[in-house]
Amino acid sequence: MEEDPRESAVTLHVCITCRRGEEPLEPREGRSGHKMRLALAEALQREGRSVPGIKLVPVECLSGCKRGCTVACSAPSKWSYVICDLDPQQHVNDILRFAEQYSAHPDGVPTWRDRPEIIKRSILARVPPLPLGSAAQEEAA
Amino acid sequence: MEEDPRESAVTLHVCITCRRGEEPLEPREGRSGHKMRLALAEALQREGRSVPGIKLVPVECLSGCKRGCTVACSAPSKWSYVICDLDPQQHVNDILRFAEQYSAHPDGVPTWRDRPEIIKRSILARVPPLPLGSAAQEEAA
Repeated sequence: MEEDPRESAVTLHVCITCRRGEEPLEPREGRSGHKMRLALAEALQREGRSVPGIKLVPVECLSGCKRGCTVACSAPSKWSYVICDLDPQQHVNDILRFAEQYSAHPDGVPTWRDRPEIIKRSILARVPPLPLGSAAQEEAA
Repeated sequence: MEEDPRESAVTLHVCITCRRGEEPLEPREGRSGHKMRLALAEALQREGRSVPGIKLVPVECLSGCKRGCTVACSAPSKWSYVICDLDPQQHVNDILRFAEQYSAHPDGVPTWRDRPEIIKRSILARVPPLPLGSAAQEEAA
């Protein structure tokens, strides 16, 4: 299949400190956030997903602590999405499906009705891309 | 005063469609989000704030509809913050104070205890900067 030139690498920041419900603080490996990272990594390895370059990056806190697990989906010059209320045992495929949709959309804004149900319900916040002037400033710095 | 080289231009995306409480949908100019944009613009003009280049950008929906008003603070290579529960009649100075702190911090993560009280309570979500590889990819595209 030819590569769609509109597609771009997607970074999935996965909060590894997220807990669901009353999970204990320790051990950290017991937290759902940690499990989410492992589950996403395994799914990507297993399935050889078609997204050209999902980059999985662990992170400590996306500020969605009351609604864990959380992941953030971002790419250069696109909107960023923070998604919450995620369960590593249920939603890995939905997250990767959304990442594919996000990758294929030039602005990173997949059509709402096409999104997986859990994603429709669980956008915690979104951030627009920086205006063009800011990018130019970055290059000059 | 010498300019701090760590400081960088900050983009404040202001959601102009945000409503507080039971505000009616129309007219749009009656919404708190619209008023927030005006209040921030007026404050910046009036005070000649010291932040080198706060860029005020109106936007429709940061996905924090249940917790309006919302603004997002972002800059190249820094964390982005989405802030919620804001009132144009109360919090304009707090937002600009946070933008100053954000501008002065190399990663865009002001020390928590120094932040204005409303900001401490009202971080809806935050998004890490893209990994360096992604920026390189952007430049190559």
